[in-house]
Amino acid sequence: MNALWSDMVKRTEPYTPGEQVNGEEWIKLNTNENPYPPSPRVFEALQQELTSNLRKYPESNPEELRNALAELHQVSADQVFIGNGSDEVLAFSFMAFFSPEKPILFPAITYSFYPTYAALFDISHAAIPLQEDFNLDEKAFCNSEGGVIFPNPNAPTGISLSIDGVANIVSGNRGRTVIIDEAYIDFGGVTAIPLLERFDNLLIIRTMSKSRSLAGLRIGYAIGSKNMIEALNRIKNSFNSYTIDRLALAAGVASVNDKDYFNDMIQSIIQTREQAKKVFESVGFTVLPSVANFLFVHHPEIPAKQLHKSLKDKQILVRHFSKPETEEWLRVTIGSDDEMKQFFEKLFELVGVWTDKSSAY
Amino acid sequence: MNALWSDMVKRTEPYTPGEQVNGEEWIKLNTNENPYPPSPRVFEALQQELTSNLRKYPESNPEELRNALAELHQVSADQVFIGNGSDEVLAFSFMAFFSPEKPILFPAITYSFYPTYAALFDISHAAIPLQEDFNLDEKAFCNSEGGVIFPNPNAPTGISLSIDGVANIVSGNRGRTVIIDEAYIDFGGVTAIPLLERFDNLLIIRTMSKSRSLAGLRIGYAIGSKNMIEALNRIKNSFNSYTIDRLALAAGVASVNDKDYFNDMIQSIIQTREQAKKVFESVGFTVLPSVANFLFVHHPEIPAKQLHKSLKDKQILVRHFSKPETEEWLRVTIGSDDEMKQFFEKLFELVGVWTDKSSAY
Repeated sequence: MNALWSDMVKRTEPYTPGEQVNGEEWIKLNTNENPYPPSPRVFEALQQELTSNLRKYPESNPEELRNALAELHQVSADQVFIGNGSDEVLAFSFMAFFSPEKPILFPAITYSFYPTYAALFDISHAAIPLQEDFNLDEKAFCNSEGGVIFPNPNAPTGISLSIDGVANIVSGNRGRTVIIDEAYIDFGGVTAIPLLERFDNLLIIRTMSKSRSLAGLRIGYAIGSKNMIEALNRIKNSFNSYTIDRLALAAGVASVNDKDYFNDMIQSIIQTREQAKKVFESVGFTVLPSVANFLFVHHPEIPAKQLHKSLKDKQILVRHFSKPETEEWLRVTIGSDDEMKQFFEKLFELVGVWTDKSSAY
Repeated sequence: MNALWSDMVKRTEPYTPGEQVNGEEWIKLNTNENPYPPSPRVFEALQQELTSNLRKYPESNPEELRNALAELHQVSADQVFIGNGSDEVLAFSFMAFFSPEKPILFPAITYSFYPTYAALFDISHAAIPLQEDFNLDEKAFCNSEGGVIFPNPNAPTGISLSIDGVANIVSGNRGRTVIIDEAYIDFGGVTAIPLLERFDNLLIIRTMSKSRSLAGLRIGYAIGSKNMIEALNRIKNSFNSYTIDRLALAAGVASVNDKDYFNDMIQSIIQTREQAKKVFESVGFTVLPSVANFLFVHHPEIPAKQLHKSLKDKQILVRHFSKPETEEWLRVTIGSDDEMKQFFEKLFELVGVWTDKSSAY
């Protein structure tokens, strides 16, 4: 039967997203969703869009949202490309800027969708090991043959690379595309957007799923030179003329325009994160220095896989990645203060049981 | 600067969608949108989804909508694949079932996105001329090397192929994929879905943009064997885990569940179409026998390009395709009765002016 499958299907290595569960009884700290709702202005805007206009196609190259994002990031509207979640923007970027015969570089510990895209589009690649302290090895990312992609801050570590470090990698790859995936930048990182004035080989990708609480509406975007945005538009317009629906467009504009709500929410999450880090450390966890909305944590005595399972038995989801490099770590999304309180109550029980048990040996 | 572009970008031939305009003063008969609003149940369902759950990812493999569609079409839920508009489903299908080295076949006059996909994914293809009367030449589509794709009814002609004709093409391509694009099937065509019991090389693609008035929300789907749906899922899960947002999913389910509203609306459009056909003919147009929500029309004396422009000057948009085979024709979407009345008033003026002018020569 697989006789009908193309070679492309046969070589896929599909990504497995974090588990989704229904029910208020679960505490869901596994997919880096925002614990707070979108801005009230988002709901007002959505309400206004519930008209018979839903029968009409949305804008193909959304002007209002591009303008809002251009103003937010101090670039021009033709430097902005909008997609159906940052995963679609990433997929289009692999299509637009990477080529099969030229190996690209990404970190060995990183967003695990990158090797999936590389498999789909048959792009050869090398995974560059992180340094001992989980920082990126800047030099190892210079002089790539086919381009570079990495998240800043990195996932699932949460560790950020300095703006000088980013600039070194971009300038070390002139004539090849460097993609910075800034999915988590709003939670305390320093954006590479100002580097666009110096470099024409830099593409920055963002999402509204995390910091703007809009995972359910699928909005991502890229910022780069006009020439790079033109390449993305050529791919998109060869793939799907209308990738963002009318409701998502309205929600995106409203979210960008409510700067106070956004800033307050981000500050809350950062405070909760810093507090959570201390609590983890107080019961013996190693916690990497995260500037994202999650913490990557390791306990010297408790196997991560087992802890993941024990938490799930208590209706708490965190993320465990079973690759050898990360199998002793868990990624824990920052929830609301109340969710974190409940999470730590359960965690303390498990840590108590485990350390009693292990001290009994 | 294009040094950064991949070969894929360089070979793109982007599709140009029909023009979008804003403002109530325009009569928009150029993109085959439905003149009627979505079902009232769609708005109720959307209203209920405007909650803080928008902060959470939608389902990756939407269960409720797949179940609703499976019930509607009398297939199993694992025979249904849902995408971000049928254009995305088409793109994934080109990736999943067609291969560069094996030429595919499609009609020479057809949905002009097919050659665009073929260019993007570097799939060689042959465009099979239509017969004199614009019908598909069944035999010419048999024994393809790499598969077949065509719309039924065809666009922009609106002419349908009989179910036996479809079966002949599918059985004439065993071991290769035949994709039937049923974007317009609900307006009076006969679906190929029952053929799935006999053939495992058949994929049927549908959209909710036309017959369900949901162009603004981007929902398309495919129905085929489990094996084919698995191929599409492998591509999707290598591209974007969540392609349909929470609001679109809710709207889709509500639309499928309101069968009465759907049937009434379809009947209205069919009646308006049959009436419009007579009116066109009464002023000298040739009109192909359409079972879609548009008519493909030709006037022996009035150049189509000129008529397109003159209508636009009167704030009426219809679609003109400038390819040699179709440059003497216009595609006119069936609007509401009121829109068609206004359209014909303006058209009569133009036809009058033109025939006076031409008789003066």
